[in-house]
Amino acid sequence: NPSTATVYLVGAGPGDVGLITVRGRELLERADVVVYDYLSNPRLLSYCPRAETIYVGKKAAAHSMSQDQINALLVDLGRRGKRVVRLKGGDPFVFGRGGEECEALAEAGVAFEVVPGITAAIGAPAYAGIPVTHRDFNSSFTFITGHEKEDEYKDPQAKSRESAAGSSDLDWSVIARLPCIAFYMGVKSLPRICGKLIEHGMSADMPAAAIRWGTRPQQQTVVGTVGTLAARVNEVGL
Amino acid sequence: NPSTATVYLVGAGPGDVGLITVRGRELLERADVVVYDYLSNPRLLSYCPRAETIYVGKKAAAHSMSQDQINALLVDLGRRGKRVVRLKGGDPFVFGRGGEECEALAEAGVAFEVVPGITAAIGAPAYAGIPVTHRDFNSSFTFITGHEKEDEYKDPQAKSRESAAGSSDLDWSVIARLPCIAFYMGVKSLPRICGKLIEHGMSADMPAAAIRWGTRPQQQTVVGTVGTLAARVNEVGL
Repeated sequence: NPSTATVYLVGAGPGDVGLITVRGRELLERADVVVYDYLSNPRLLSYCPRAETIYVGKKAAAHSMSQDQINALLVDLGRRGKRVVRLKGGDPFVFGRGGEECEALAEAGVAFEVVPGITAAIGAPAYAGIPVTHRDFNSSFTFITGHEKEDEYKDPQAKSRESAAGSSDLDWSVIARLPCIAFYMGVKSLPRICGKLIEHGMSADMPAAAIRWGTRPQQQTVVGTVGTLAARVNEVGL
Repeated sequence: NPSTATVYLVGAGPGDVGLITVRGRELLERADVVVYDYLSNPRLLSYCPRAETIYVGKKAAAHSMSQDQINALLVDLGRRGKRVVRLKGGDPFVFGRGGEECEALAEAGVAFEVVPGITAAIGAPAYAGIPVTHRDFNSSFTFITGHEKEDEYKDPQAKSRESAAGSSDLDWSVIARLPCIAFYMGVKSLPRICGKLIEHGMSADMPAAAIRWGTRPQQQTVVGTVGTLAARVNEVGL
């Protein structure tokens, strides 16, 4: 029930501050506390000048706060009756670990609401003029997280999750047959991803693009094929 | 270049008027003409009380305007220097035929810009509390259009496109092995979709949900499995 929610998981969108939703912006304007991570455009915080802001960002090499600590923080703030916005880059439920935060809030009996956001795989291609679906070419579109789990998560809790989850759902023989795919955070993994796709039967001539800083003024797009993209990205120094 | 664009393809989001982007709303407020279709929440038009509004909506059985006519209208309005918003349900590039409209504008030399929107397959599950990705369960998420092309498009132009495009990229043996899928507009096709998935090896026990009026106050969610969902939806009368 929106009227009783105290914690709002809000998608910040992919970068351009204009791509947050009207509702997300309204919630930021009314928030007591904003808990945010490094994926959000820092300029979004200009929408909440009076709120307390807490940075809990994650980076590949160093976590400022573990996921369990973030969950506990949200539960604590919610129990204290604060109007909390948990601002997450892109969409809270697309590779954002929002599901885990919702589970923690639900278990603790804290009311919450999810406000979707524009995810990078939709926003960045749009700004690059690339339709992710086209009636003449494809009737499906797949998002895949391009991170290796071992690269992304260094804390012991994450390692135990990793062995529990494995990567069994990433079946390259299936992925290589999909007509249109977006890999998130794939730059470091790009040579491996393209290699796997070709190894499993995708044509090396399949058009491909890499986008950095999607939807922000400094957005860069490199265009090639699955066979050439990794080298082209390397040349450009993306 | 945004400052010279005259035609803006704006994603209206999935239904809740609060789920349009801040930029989309600003463009509506400044528009001279708004060209919209039936997927948008009519209340969005309250953001543009002074604009001329042109309805070009499509329905399964009757087109009010063909895609070629819509393309020509956008080109004409853009050439006349109007500030045009082409308001499309969800996201313009996710099964929205926005790519075709962009092609027509580009060919005619009319400047345009795409403003992404929250697509239904992200917005509706979020409002139903369903994370579309979860670290413990899946690292990919696929959108598929659930419409049969022959159901959706009745005009002769569309029929020629249909035979050109075929449905060759819908390979059920691939789809049935994906961990998380959203079918758009799938209610009529639901029995066939679930049958195909099971026929091609998906477990009948795979959890499944159908959502109607996603993100609107009257949103309805029916939960079951791939084996039971079609019957449950029928019982409920979705």
